[in-house]
Amino acid sequence: MLADRPGRTVRLPIVAWKDGESRQRSDELATEEPLEIRVINEDQRGLVRHRVAVTMRTPGNDFELAAGFLLSEGVLVERQAISHIAYCTDPDEAQQYNIVNVSLRPGVPFDVERLSRHVYTSSSCGICGKASLEQVRAVCPQRPSTALKVSADFVLQLPDALRQAQAIFERTGGLHATALFGADGRLLMLREDVGRHNAMDKVIGASLLNGTLPLSDSIALVSGRTSFELVQKALMAGVPILASVGAPSSLAVDLAREFDMTLIGFLRDGRFNVYAGRERIAVPPY
Amino acid sequence: MLADRPGRTVRLPIVAWKDGESRQRSDELATEEPLEIRVINEDQRGLVRHRVAVTMRTPGNDFELAAGFLLSEGVLVERQAISHIAYCTDPDEAQQYNIVNVSLRPGVPFDVERLSRHVYTSSSCGICGKASLEQVRAVCPQRPSTALKVSADFVLQLPDALRQAQAIFERTGGLHATALFGADGRLLMLREDVGRHNAMDKVIGASLLNGTLPLSDSIALVSGRTSFELVQKALMAGVPILASVGAPSSLAVDLAREFDMTLIGFLRDGRFNVYAGRERIAVPPY
Repeated sequence: MLADRPGRTVRLPIVAWKDGESRQRSDELATEEPLEIRVINEDQRGLVRHRVAVTMRTPGNDFELAAGFLLSEGVLVERQAISHIAYCTDPDEAQQYNIVNVSLRPGVPFDVERLSRHVYTSSSCGICGKASLEQVRAVCPQRPSTALKVSADFVLQLPDALRQAQAIFERTGGLHATALFGADGRLLMLREDVGRHNAMDKVIGASLLNGTLPLSDSIALVSGRTSFELVQKALMAGVPILASVGAPSSLAVDLAREFDMTLIGFLRDGRFNVYAGRERIAVPPY
Repeated sequence: MLADRPGRTVRLPIVAWKDGESRQRSDELATEEPLEIRVINEDQRGLVRHRVAVTMRTPGNDFELAAGFLLSEGVLVERQAISHIAYCTDPDEAQQYNIVNVSLRPGVPFDVERLSRHVYTSSSCGICGKASLEQVRAVCPQRPSTALKVSADFVLQLPDALRQAQAIFERTGGLHATALFGADGRLLMLREDVGRHNAMDKVIGASLLNGTLPLSDSIALVSGRTSFELVQKALMAGVPILASVGAPSSLAVDLAREFDMTLIGFLRDGRFNVYAGRERIAVPPY
């Protein structure tokens, strides 16, 4: 029997201080729980279980998170590699809902060394931003398509659509979001998580599982800032335009420029900055 | 010869869109570069170099970051364990400023297994929030002191002090900050980083190196949200009151309650919520 499934939010009694007065009330918080991602594959020894990662995440869309993590970190390149995904049903495990087993099809090679986080430390050229970029080049299957082009007005309307759909954030203030939009501006998908990399992995994993990778015709919008890691994950999924409400880091911009991805930052209050790939933003006169 | 030292910010040409017009200008971004933390200790085999972690960080205060990481992750418990800290001077390494060597005094044991992130996966009770709390209990040297007590007005003035001191954030919008305040409200220290856990590690490392741990009389304020990881790190440094401008996660609150730390969230616009340890907030009538 599986243990209780953790919810996306919890309610707790707190003390709220406002206008010189304190009062007791309840508050809704975003749930944070560890998720262990395991890969099960078959080799000469039979079925082998690899503990690949533990991430602190908000429960919900856990299979997507596991699949997206494996794709965006370069472990898997296609949906066909996955035989099935399930919560752990080992009766010795107390919290099966925090363990996801991703079983590979027989014969699919599994190279735990491709996990990009681990590659840094064995890079022969030392550790630097350039090595980080090269490491992405080694695992990234493609450059984003150049076919997609959008107008500035199109870009400007994305944050409102994100905000309207961010249900849990509105209640808890505690979640990062990644939204995926189609070329027609329609919101295709929104995922929320306490970890911004998890929100991105959930979007990528959902796309992997429903067969819509690479995301050549989609625009991704993240609620916070853009790091190297977020650009890397979006690149692995073929996203041509990545926008963020907050600032990008230097290495996020370096990576986007290196791979011809369009990177937009500070998308809010009717303005935005284009840090890379401006050719995908059609500026009037068209 | 060491390579060029990376700066905390970089300037890049960008395209800014505002009020229906685009123009080219330069923008200042927070630098993000990998930092590898190595521990060098002596055992039967002589000097042994352990590659402990790679973190994406904003350059600056790198020795503090390395020392703070080792303390907050349970690898080191005291300053005396460290013989010296230096950038890598190996001529084969192209980017020595991205590698920090922490040398331990002869005889100091080094147990890489104590690295808390790794402990999750070997926990016998499975993986769950409760196991995460127990893992902190196994490495945390003390509970925060109960001697410190502050007023609500004291708490309310902290964000302004943080904002005034956050120089790089003002220019780039891209950095998280951790500030440390004394019981008299004076800002003792502020550290900024693209990674919020790094900003906390820098504060903890600086305190370790200048001999002011545990931080029993200090209040820490973080610019963003509070995760399990941030509470864990603050606990390892003995911080009795941790406040954040944003929301805490469920597990952050669980951990603070378990260890009798005061956890404050949504500290902004003249209000705040107390999620744990309300006994350290003196509410009038006193």
